[in-house]
Amino acid sequence: MRETHRPVIAFLTDFGLDGAAATCRGVMLAICPDAQVIDVSHTVRKFAIRDGAFIFRSALPFMPVGVHLAVVDPGVGTARRPLAIATTRGDVLIGPDNGLLLPAAAALGGAESARELTNRELWLPQTTATFHGRDIFAPVAARLACGLTEFEAVGGAIDLDSLVALPAPTIRTADGRINTEVTYVDSFGNLRLAGGASELARAFGELADGALCSLVIGQQPALMAAFAASFGHVEVGAAVLYIDSSGDLAVGMNQGDLGASIGASPGMQVLIERP
Amino acid sequence: MRETHRPVIAFLTDFGLDGAAATCRGVMLAICPDAQVIDVSHTVRKFAIRDGAFIFRSALPFMPVGVHLAVVDPGVGTARRPLAIATTRGDVLIGPDNGLLLPAAAALGGAESARELTNRELWLPQTTATFHGRDIFAPVAARLACGLTEFEAVGGAIDLDSLVALPAPTIRTADGRINTEVTYVDSFGNLRLAGGASELARAFGELADGALCSLVIGQQPALMAAFAASFGHVEVGAAVLYIDSSGDLAVGMNQGDLGASIGASPGMQVLIERP
Amino acid sequence: MRETHRPVIAFLTDFGLDGAAATCRGVMLAICPDAQVIDVSHTVRKFAIRDGAFIFRSALPFMPVGVHLAVVDPGVGTARRPLAIATTRGDVLIGPDNGLLLPAAAALGGAESARELTNRELWLPQTTATFHGRDIFAPVAARLACGLTEFEAVGGAIDLDSLVALPAPTIRTADGRINTEVTYVDSFGNLRLAGGASELARAFGELADGALCSLVIGQQPALMAAFAASFGHVEVGAAVLYIDSSGDLAVGMNQGDLGASIGASPGMQVLIERP
Repeated sequence: MRETHRPVIAFLTDFGLDGAAATCRGVMLAICPDAQVIDVSHTVRKFAIRDGAFIFRSALPFMPVGVHLAVVDPGVGTARRPLAIATTRGDVLIGPDNGLLLPAAAALGGAESARELTNRELWLPQTTATFHGRDIFAPVAARLACGLTEFEAVGGAIDLDSLVALPAPTIRTADGRINTEVTYVDSFGNLRLAGGASELARAFGELADGALCSLVIGQQPALMAAFAASFGHVEVGAAVLYIDSSGDLAVGMNQGDLGASIGASPGMQVLIERP
Repeated sequence: MRETHRPVIAFLTDFGLDGAAATCRGVMLAICPDAQVIDVSHTVRKFAIRDGAFIFRSALPFMPVGVHLAVVDPGVGTARRPLAIATTRGDVLIGPDNGLLLPAAAALGGAESARELTNRELWLPQTTATFHGRDIFAPVAARLACGLTEFEAVGGAIDLDSLVALPAPTIRTADGRINTEVTYVDSFGNLRLAGGASELARAFGELADGALCSLVIGQQPALMAAFAASFGHVEVGAAVLYIDSSGDLAVGMNQGDLGASIGASPGMQVLIERP
Repeated sequence: MRETHRPVIAFLTDFGLDGAAATCRGVMLAICPDAQVIDVSHTVRKFAIRDGAFIFRSALPFMPVGVHLAVVDPGVGTARRPLAIATTRGDVLIGPDNGLLLPAAAALGGAESARELTNRELWLPQTTATFHGRDIFAPVAARLACGLTEFEAVGGAIDLDSLVALPAPTIRTADGRINTEVTYVDSFGNLRLAGGASELARAFGELADGALCSLVIGQQPALMAAFAASFGHVEVGAAVLYIDSSGDLAVGMNQGDLGASIGASPGMQVLIERP
């Protein structure tokens, strides 16, 4: 990855597709006309901070270094703090202090420092209580991206330890079993799970291609899934356990939607065993 | 707001996400390669001119000055006129003469003058009867945005009074009551209503934070909503009456979807009283 | 159409809107910061190669010449080949060898030559088995778009005759009848059909505006549709047979969703007769 000359702003919200996210984009481009705004997602499940955090941290390592903005913010207009976090890679992450930004910061080498957005001179002249994305977050992100302000000027420093974090997901391994949890259900209906190749090796040793595993997902009956590198290695409609493109455990169905077929959602507990 | 060097084209349609809007974007970028096209929304409810007009006028005041294009056009290929409207702020709005553009023009300081798009030299060489977005509107918008043509050259001047306008929504206040109407249901399920803070003050005087109001929405039983600055000031699942980010009255549910739960749609009558 | 100075990458997938397509965009912009990436669609029906091919070939003739990327790829991570196809117009098309790219190549003047993407130096340093869009296709497309590599360097030449092609749709005409098939159901619910004006003329001679035709679509009862230039020439809710914006036969309903109302899907057989 190399830095680009045009400032890059990756942008994620749960605002939907009816103009609110575009309005923020307009605010950013009015302030920083050369910004390259990359819409990561605006259809994050409403109020689902955890979903937003998953998507943001999955995408950002592949984005150019930049000032990146995420808004999934059920607490807008209340006392929750608006944040800027500087990462080791050189990015600045902007968004509410509700856990949304920290997984992305970790994926970018870690959070180096944080500030609360309190400098109103960087906001829109009029602000509203229900649209901080437009009035506070977008203008601050754009000014930072364009070098119109310094990170230190956005507001007072705050202790990294004081930031709100999401609860860590379940992941326990023993000989012959993994207790894990659904961390995200993607648009294909694949269930992303906590843990990765090392947990798999610890529980089961070296798993041969095609090795069958039993998964108990929530209250569902056990599902047999073949361990494989990708979907096309099993029959259409069969389940496959695989290491996903972020290096995490995942289970899906070849050309099917496993998540919809079993009603999966983040937080569901998953037990993986060898039959 | 300041004008940018790259020409900005805000772009709204009801074309959906399966390539038609992108085709228009391609046409615009083929003519005006430096254009910054901002997709405001392409998932406007099909044929819902009123929804499109609401979204366009909500977004445009936050967009840089530019040539902005909106196409929700059930009358494509019939006698309805294709328009360009110059606004007081300095924008040009392009779209069909069906009421879609006028609220945005008003939000940008007002319409100054209008022209009918009749100069075929600015269109694509071949035009079709079902895709004026691609064949007429997009190329004219791009040529204007890039300065390849003058506003006066797009076609003959037409009288502003002759433009098709949407009916004005109901808004009546009396001491202790407001009769209003749903103007839009946003992607969170919040009901946007006609009228704003001044109507609220006229009906109820100064409303304290947390003051309860009774809302009768369409044929629904009365709904009690607390007046508050934002959602998080009430319990999860409770209703909140607030002034939205455009300065209008609105009612929503904290972390819930009020619109879906009561089947709300634009045009529904709403009576607001104090119990 | 003229070529632009900023390289253009039209981009289509079935990845949905939850970040995977944006991640590919990030990869492309990290490699080629000035690229103008045009999202054609990312909501192609999952695994529907035929739908993706339809949308891509409908859009590309209106896009600037460029390096264009399409990924609908149920065989990701299996032996199916990753491709680059050079078109007569001067484009390069990137994607899997499953039929997705060939209709677009034909619409751009035809395929001139093809290569298999085998040069790993052009890929991301680490590749995964489930996300070739991010790891292989996007970086190769970006390097080609920015002139960082030559078409000949992406991998070995392959025979155009060896490329996987989708089956051609049914289209037969006789005096007084057309046997055709649904090729795509668009977001308005219009059914796009194989064949165009010449098939219509061969079957029915010159059809007057408003001429009624009978359509038997799949197992549905016969539907009467008036031949017209556009939707607004018939009553709201009435069916209209028309030549669509790509020059193909199509049938829709004025301000209604014909596809949803009859459960139409690509591949359904259609018989058109004059009553």
